[in-house]
Amino acid sequence: MALIVQKFGGTSVASTDRIKNVAKRVARWKAQGHNIIVVPSAMSGETNRLIALAREISTTPDPRELDVIASTGEQVTIGLLALALKEEGLKAKSYTGPQVRVLTDSTYTKARILQIDDEKIRKDLDNGYVVVVAGFQGADENGNITTLGRGGSDTSAVALAAALTADECQIYTDVDGVYTTDPRVEPKARKLDTITFEEMLEMASLGSKVLQIRSVEFAGKYKVKLRVLSSFQEEGEGTLITVEEDKPMEQPIISGIAFNRDEAKLTILGVPDRPGIAYQLLGPIADANIDVDMIIQNVAKDETTDFSFTVNRGDYAKAMEILKATSEKLGARGVLGDDKICKVSAVGVGMRSHPGIASKVSAVGVGMRSHPGIASKMFNVLGQEGINIKMITTSEIKISVVVDEKYLELAVRVLHKAFDLDKAA
Amino acid sequence: MALIVQKFGGTSVASTDRIKNVAKRVARWKAQGHNIIVVPSAMSGETNRLIALAREISTTPDPRELDVIASTGEQVTIGLLALALKEEGLKAKSYTGPQVRVLTDSTYTKARILQIDDEKIRKDLDNGYVVVVAGFQGADENGNITTLGRGGSDTSAVALAAALTADECQIYTDVDGVYTTDPRVEPKARKLDTITFEEMLEMASLGSKVLQIRSVEFAGKYKVKLRVLSSFQEEGEGTLITVEEDKPMEQPIISGIAFNRDEAKLTILGVPDRPGIAYQLLGPIADANIDVDMIIQNVAKDETTDFSFTVNRGDYAKAMEILKATSEKLGARGVLGDDKICKVSAVGVGMRSHPGIASKVSAVGVGMRSHPGIASKMFNVLGQEGINIKMITTSEIKISVVVDEKYLELAVRVLHKAFDLDKAA
Repeated sequence: MALIVQKFGGTSVASTDRIKNVAKRVARWKAQGHNIIVVPSAMSGETNRLIALAREISTTPDPRELDVIASTGEQVTIGLLALALKEEGLKAKSYTGPQVRVLTDSTYTKARILQIDDEKIRKDLDNGYVVVVAGFQGADENGNITTLGRGGSDTSAVALAAALTADECQIYTDVDGVYTTDPRVEPKARKLDTITFEEMLEMASLGSKVLQIRSVEFAGKYKVKLRVLSSFQEEGEGTLITVEEDKPMEQPIISGIAFNRDEAKLTILGVPDRPGIAYQLLGPIADANIDVDMIIQNVAKDETTDFSFTVNRGDYAKAMEILKATSEKLGARGVLGDDKICKVSAVGVGMRSHPGIASKVSAVGVGMRSHPGIASKMFNVLGQEGINIKMITTSEIKISVVVDEKYLELAVRVLHKAFDLDKAA
Repeated sequence: MALIVQKFGGTSVASTDRIKNVAKRVARWKAQGHNIIVVPSAMSGETNRLIALAREISTTPDPRELDVIASTGEQVTIGLLALALKEEGLKAKSYTGPQVRVLTDSTYTKARILQIDDEKIRKDLDNGYVVVVAGFQGADENGNITTLGRGGSDTSAVALAAALTADECQIYTDVDGVYTTDPRVEPKARKLDTITFEEMLEMASLGSKVLQIRSVEFAGKYKVKLRVLSSFQEEGEGTLITVEEDKPMEQPIISGIAFNRDEAKLTILGVPDRPGIAYQLLGPIADANIDVDMIIQNVAKDETTDFSFTVNRGDYAKAMEILKATSEKLGARGVLGDDKICKVSAVGVGMRSHPGIASKVSAVGVGMRSHPGIASKMFNVLGQEGINIKMITTSEIKISVVVDEKYLELAVRVLHKAFDLDKAA
């Protein structure tokens, strides 16, 4: 008998019929003797509907009140799901985040979970209840209602699994697992049986929106066994997200090809090459609440340097305006921009066992073509297709390149093939 | 500077535009230097939508979960209204019932308020906030979410006014006050400037659905000054609901004509006239959760008696079935029924100052025609129009008759005229 936390996303509970199906599924797990905690999201579309109501009243709604409004979506679902579980003949009881209680900080609309009181839940589990806990929400120390931000229900589920030392946290979603890349771009994409937390983090942040990043961090930190499964298929083991040491020996070096269409690139030319220059350039961007992704500073020549970075495409116009002002202030040679780019990344912890690959890339940049490794293979394959690489960054377990947006699908497919991802492991 | 609790019903907050109007109205009161607590209902239709969702899953939804679901309607409104108040430049903060906290018993779907913690609200008021508190809801001592039943937001408002010793509790609704009768039936109906709590109770329970009965009881008990006003008209003082001693001397005897279409009558003939017989007849009806309204037992003859009572028309078939079974069991002579009846009542505390009128009616029934009072006038007026009276009951401040449903409008109009209700007081 295991203790399992099961999280069901918005599409899984989009209608009362789907909620009934979720209840049937939970009932089958319960019948196997497991203790179950279910964490549903709001019915799909509901959170957007609620936020739209708030925006009809205020273009910049007060975040405390926004959370009061938005948290009702999950509250409706927990009640409905508890009713559906009772219809299956189970004992069931629902709790909102504040009821549990899920204690968070006071950062409305993107609060962080500080602590979960497990007393009520444990007592109910001991008495044979399936416990339904609202995802996405909690309360701060003063009892104010908070929400965890988009996708926060994943984090709620993982945090509950950690607090109750559950045997597994199952994330039911509209895909049946994590794939080597997006099957809509490369039909030969394969479902992975396992992926490490770190790979998952890189995949998620790069656009494979299966799981909320924070929930993966949380699961990694608290060693929660996390599994991604399909809500709509009964069969299949999904993808298990593991710690690295659990990986089988024959694990391929590259686990997947991630990508992000939603990028734009900005370059400032000929800025003085002196300490503090990066802060002078990026400080005003951060102050405008614009997230910067890749950052590259070229080797200096004639005491000036060129500096490039990428932002979300939606922030491009704003970022460009700010950068132009900075350019004039610093007496830079000028500003360039391109919002028709995308980012493609090869991700895999296997890179770690090839010492020097990643570090060499970051040290010597594109000059490392001679290295018989991941990076050179990547650059070579793209070059053979005539795809020009505009920027490169690396981490310990990924290599990302920026290319013209029009090459996205082609780049993903050739890399998927080059790293043998279309073949069973 | 006064402390005022303002309750806005579902139609007053039916859209974001209407919520903005409510905020503007509150802002005008606030600008006069008053401290304001606002208690909104759910947007009209929302509670029904939520309950319908629950019923899609379960025909007899668990009441605890139903309350978890239904309470979200008001939670959305408090957030939206707080946002709208902020747009008016006011400081505003919302609280759910559990947050305040509004402590109730554990009778889900029709909980009773036991206590209200006024600490947070007082502090916010002192700091210049308009405080928005969700009506209709609370939490029991274990933190379970409860609701107060239909119309419960009125009770929330009055209970808050009592807990905070507010100077006035204003109930904004879609009528501009309490009328001498329903203007849709008698266009000459007049708005009353004042009405006593007791009259209001009789008017409300008889179908003038301006205020929830329990809120009126509550206001009477805790001496809360209650005023009914229109949400949609800026002008007008509404109707003030007073304690009897505040009534002006020239108060007419009858304040209004109330009615209820939704009635059905059942009679059991020739039951043994012995102690306990009423319980034997009505016990099984109560066990089936059917509310009984009027009850009349005729004077016994030949050691048997006839026994009549009225129920909601929706319960008629069920009640008849139960009564037939009882009839067989007791060896009664038979059972009669009529679901084409209605109840019309004359209500007024002025009756009290005519000693003997009401008590005589109940003592001697229709035989009191010679008495020059309210009852005889009522029976005489109806008789002149050829309206046959089928049942009579009385209380200290009302006389009710049951007549054929087809005579309802006629009966209301002739009584309204006979008691001079169409003339200004």
